[in-house]
Amino acid sequence: MIRKALIFRVLGLLLIIESIFMLISAPFSFFYGDSDGLNLIISSLITFFVGLTSWFFTRKTRLDINKREGYTIVSLVWVVFSFFGSLPFFISGAIPSYTDAFFETISGFTTTGASILNDIESLSHGLLFWRSITQWLGGMGIIVMSLAIFPILGIGGMQLFIAEVPGPSPDKLHPRVKETAKRLWGIYAIFTFAEFILLMLGGIDCFDAICHSFTTMATGGYSTKQLSIAFYDSAYIQYIIILFMFLAGTNFTLSYFGLRLRFKKIFKNEEFRFYLLFILGFTIIIVAFLILLTGGDFEKTFRDSLFQVVSIITTTGFVTTDYILWPSFLVLILFILMFFGGSAGSTGGSIKIVRVLLVFKNSFIELRRLLHPNAVIPVRLNSRGVHPTIISNILAFVVIYMFSFIFGVIVMSIFGLDLESSMGAVAATLGNVGPGIGSVGPMENYSLIHDSGKWFLSFLMLLGRLELFTVLMLFTKSFWKK
Amino acid sequence: MIRKALIFRVLGLLLIIESIFMLISAPFSFFYGDSDGLNLIISSLITFFVGLTSWFFTRKTRLDINKREGYTIVSLVWVVFSFFGSLPFFISGAIPSYTDAFFETISGFTTTGASILNDIESLSHGLLFWRSITQWLGGMGIIVMSLAIFPILGIGGMQLFIAEVPGPSPDKLHPRVKETAKRLWGIYAIFTFAEFILLMLGGIDCFDAICHSFTTMATGGYSTKQLSIAFYDSAYIQYIIILFMFLAGTNFTLSYFGLRLRFKKIFKNEEFRFYLLFILGFTIIIVAFLILLTGGDFEKTFRDSLFQVVSIITTTGFVTTDYILWPSFLVLILFILMFFGGSAGSTGGSIKIVRVLLVFKNSFIELRRLLHPNAVIPVRLNSRGVHPTIISNILAFVVIYMFSFIFGVIVMSIFGLDLESSMGAVAATLGNVGPGIGSVGPMENYSLIHDSGKWFLSFLMLLGRLELFTVLMLFTKSFWKK
Repeated sequence: MIRKALIFRVLGLLLIIESIFMLISAPFSFFYGDSDGLNLIISSLITFFVGLTSWFFTRKTRLDINKREGYTIVSLVWVVFSFFGSLPFFISGAIPSYTDAFFETISGFTTTGASILNDIESLSHGLLFWRSITQWLGGMGIIVMSLAIFPILGIGGMQLFIAEVPGPSPDKLHPRVKETAKRLWGIYAIFTFAEFILLMLGGIDCFDAICHSFTTMATGGYSTKQLSIAFYDSAYIQYIIILFMFLAGTNFTLSYFGLRLRFKKIFKNEEFRFYLLFILGFTIIIVAFLILLTGGDFEKTFRDSLFQVVSIITTTGFVTTDYILWPSFLVLILFILMFFGGSAGSTGGSIKIVRVLLVFKNSFIELRRLLHPNAVIPVRLNSRGVHPTIISNILAFVVIYMFSFIFGVIVMSIFGLDLESSMGAVAATLGNVGPGIGSVGPMENYSLIHDSGKWFLSFLMLLGRLELFTVLMLFTKSFWKK
Repeated sequence: MIRKALIFRVLGLLLIIESIFMLISAPFSFFYGDSDGLNLIISSLITFFVGLTSWFFTRKTRLDINKREGYTIVSLVWVVFSFFGSLPFFISGAIPSYTDAFFETISGFTTTGASILNDIESLSHGLLFWRSITQWLGGMGIIVMSLAIFPILGIGGMQLFIAEVPGPSPDKLHPRVKETAKRLWGIYAIFTFAEFILLMLGGIDCFDAICHSFTTMATGGYSTKQLSIAFYDSAYIQYIIILFMFLAGTNFTLSYFGLRLRFKKIFKNEEFRFYLLFILGFTIIIVAFLILLTGGDFEKTFRDSLFQVVSIITTTGFVTTDYILWPSFLVLILFILMFFGGSAGSTGGSIKIVRVLLVFKNSFIELRRLLHPNAVIPVRLNSRGVHPTIISNILAFVVIYMFSFIFGVIVMSIFGLDLESSMGAVAATLGNVGPGIGSVGPMENYSLIHDSGKWFLSFLMLLGRLELFTVLMLFTKSFWKK
């Protein structure tokens, strides 16, 4: 059973939280003397009153959220947040088309970072700040953030947490969901602050340092510069951003161990070892071929390659070089990396490394099973057997991911994109990466896509961010059965 | 344990069988007065003596083939057959490059139908016949053919049968493998003969009718004409070929029921219903868009669309129109159809419809499992629950298929193909379809690909024909452990 009143109540509460963050963006406009402060305040007030009304008229509802309600709320909240979150862009006229404004906002909340802006630097500071903070809020998850900051959702928060963080997470940080949310959020805030300081030390403008710290830790990839990180021609700054993209793509449970100096636990983690291995392996391949085929400065080639590999594998989407000008099979490798995603329990999107790993292991074991049909051979992770139902779930996830990708490519090609651009746009939105290949490459954007295509890609971003099942479940018959 | 003597003995025997079919091709050259009769006889004699030597020197070996030996023999026999089968092309000088000759032959045996010939019609009748018969032999399977015709392999034939026909086949035709092989081969021969008669009635030259019947029933797609079936501008002939491609892509067990007039059993079969549904559904989509976008004659558009859908879904690869000139998303749909394959127990390749079906069903059920984590919800096929180990095997198959595809695309792009052509070449060879998209489209061929690329694609054809596991198993450590 799904109680509408309860859903309105929770969404109302969350909207009030959103309005607060919108309000926080306004002072930046006043400080830098641009004209969007008022637009942010108006948007914030609209959001606040809608949220308050919804919360007030359902005040008699108890918040004992069940499973179905959990999935419904989580799917809806991301849409509702994007709807109200797009108001500042639309009301101010900075993004005149509502479709574009919604696209830009859901691309923010889902930490995709796919933009329709042709001149990012013409945006006011208030809007740029709001654009960055959508990613920061979405990065750790709207629900996780709300659970951490506002304990009011304590009852039933578990159902919401499961629906928003569905990934396979072998280690639990803390059995109580509120504590988990607080710790995750704490680490997230610490890292964001650390990056901010280190970027400032590198000479970046304070405002840009804040914004980039937000969008790095969220693996979002929105930059305040049209050229993205290529704008900063400084090895120091680019390496700092590589470091924090890497951290953002690492399981936050491991970072928690790291902050407590328990490094042994980190390197015993199989997913982390493969995360490192993939990054180093693919970087070496790319560097080797680039040096071999095009020559060029070693340090700069290495830095660009490492930057792009980390940026794409973590699904951040920052750019230091126009990688679609690389030899075509290197572009293909980057494209395939879009499917890897960061670690489970990180802010990265896409399939995620632990799933890729388990799917590979299971396939190899299947070959052994054919030779020994009566033996029970479990798939192992971190030296422990993984339960077959988890493997089955992961295989279904990967298969649905592939089918969503294929379906998406067909739809986008109907909207007139060529094959390469369709594949790039779908992989980059479904995987929450941002820039793709072809006509949506790193130095291009999504502005030229047909409006229907933008709505479709928005849906893919949501589908990817909530790891398929939460959203797809709403489209099944059995979900709505009494 | 793998006994080399036993492997040599079985391969020797099979080579003798191959030499007989090679010899059968020679009279066509004599009859049509071309010069390749002698080349075919020489090739046949070489093959015969190598086979005989191998068989003779291992005559003390008992043929109690175990599992590992079964997989080894089956993988090897396809390579060995292609090696000797390429001799007529190479010795005669019709295909001067050995790489090309091998490619053309393994493409024949695996019923892929990817060609390197720029002028098929310049080939002599003897060679054209041999080229067609490689497909016919490969279609039902070299081992199945040998078991059916030469009962000498009776002992241990089961292991070979399992290794060559690994697909999920819910119905068993007959518990004894020799009987099964005979019935399959019988139906295969009957259909081939029926097509031959019907093509003759349509006014096709006798020789061309034989060759096209061979390659239709094998879902091979080698034509004796450079223009493939587009050469025959006759609705009758094209519909006849559509019909037999459809039959070749149907489970032969069902055809057996059909020949015994038990039609109810056919339409109760879920895979068959979806096979029909996919063919009709995709044809309607393509016809609708072609009429809408380009206009043109309805009957001809319908015929071309149906022809291409059936040709590609059954992995035959015959062509009546240059489909890469269609609007790009229709090309994309045909490309995706390359992954469907025919029914299990048919001569079609690729993933096969029953697997696609079960993978989809399992994914939907996974969504229900998330809502009811304690319920055991089986995947059903033909109203019966499918055992989880079969589902797990199928999921692993689909995942490995996808990874093989991705790996293949990377390799081919290293060999210098653009993305679209790489994807086309890999999907068309791994799926045993033949013509792909891009530079290996229906009116092009594989002659311009780098030699290393041709060897790699040859490997993919074998991998696909033996449904991945049989070949991949040989590359695992546990296979070679004592």
